[in-house]
Amino acid sequence: MKVPGCPLCDGAGGALVFQGSAFRLIRADEAGFPAFYRLVWNEHVAEFSDLSRSQRAVCAEGLATVELALRSVLAPTKVNLAALGNLVPHLHWHLIARFADDSHFPSPVWAAPQRAALPERLAAIEAQLPALEALMLARLSALSEPPEPGARA
Amino acid sequence: MKVPGCPLCDGAGGALVFQGSAFRLIRADEAGFPAFYRLVWNEHVAEFSDLSRSQRAVCAEGLATVELALRSVLAPTKVNLAALGNLVPHLHWHLIARFADDSHFPSPVWAAPQRAALPERLAAIEAQLPALEALMLARLSALSEPPEPGARA
Repeated sequence: MKVPGCPLCDGAGGALVFQGSAFRLIRADEAGFPAFYRLVWNEHVAEFSDLSRSQRAVCAEGLATVELALRSVLAPTKVNLAALGNLVPHLHWHLIARFADDSHFPSPVWAAPQRAALPERLAAIEAQLPALEALMLARLSALSEPPEPGARA
Repeated sequence: MKVPGCPLCDGAGGALVFQGSAFRLIRADEAGFPAFYRLVWNEHVAEFSDLSRSQRAVCAEGLATVELALRSVLAPTKVNLAALGNLVPHLHWHLIARFADDSHFPSPVWAAPQRAALPERLAAIEAQLPALEALMLARLSALSEPPEPGARA
C-alpha cells in the first residue's frame, strides 16, 4: 500500500545501496556524517511493532548485516541505530557510524554539535564508501536469497 | 561478564519494571518524558550485532512487546526506538512514547525543545504508568516463559 504524500512511498529516500523485497538500504545525505544510512521498510507501516514476528526478524537481520559491514570497513567508535519517524511515519531505521572525533560525539547526531567536523576525516570516510557499499550490497543480497540446494543454512 | 565501571553492569540503570534472563526493562527518569523506558541487555555487549541471531530475535521481540504495551495503554503519536550507547557502550534500547504536544515533538528527544512541557499532560501520562508497567511485566514474563504443554505457540 502506498500512502499519498509519504516521501518514502513516493521515492527511495536517498541514494539506493540495496533494494530487496522487504526493505531497501539508502545512503542519507546528512552533513558531517558521511556513513549515515537508512534501512527503509518497503511497505508503509508506522511502527516496528506493526511488522509480524517474521518480518521483525528479517528487519533485525538487515540491521545487523548493515551494522557489521559498517564495523568491518570503518571500525567506528560506535554504531547508532534509531527508528524515530516523528516527521515521516513510514518505518525507517537510521544506521550511523559514529567516531570519537565527529562533530557531535558522544551526543546523538540530533543534539547540539560538540565541535567542528574535520574535513580530512570526512574525506577519508567518504573514500571508503564505495568498498563499504559493495560489501553491504553483497551481504544484503546473500541474506535475502534462498539458500542454494544442498547449502547449509 | 561484568565490566568494571560500567553503570549498566554495576546496577539496574533505573526503576526495574521487568527482569528476565536475557534483558531487563527499566523506567528511565528523563524530565518531560514520563513514558521513557530502556531495554537493557543483561550481558555486557556494545553493539546489537554483537548478539547472535537468536539473541537478536529475543531482543526484537522484547522491543515489540514493550512498544505494543506503550501503544495499547498510552496511544502515543509515535514510538521512538534507539540504541546509541556513545556514553555507555553496554547495549540498551531507548523506547519512548512521543506525543504531538510533548516538549520536543516532532524532533528527537535529544534535540532542542520546541515548546514547554504541559504539566497536566505529564501528570495524566504518569497516572497511567502503573497499569502500563503491569501490562509490560505480564507480557514480557509470558514472552520469556516456555509454552505450557499443549499450548499453541
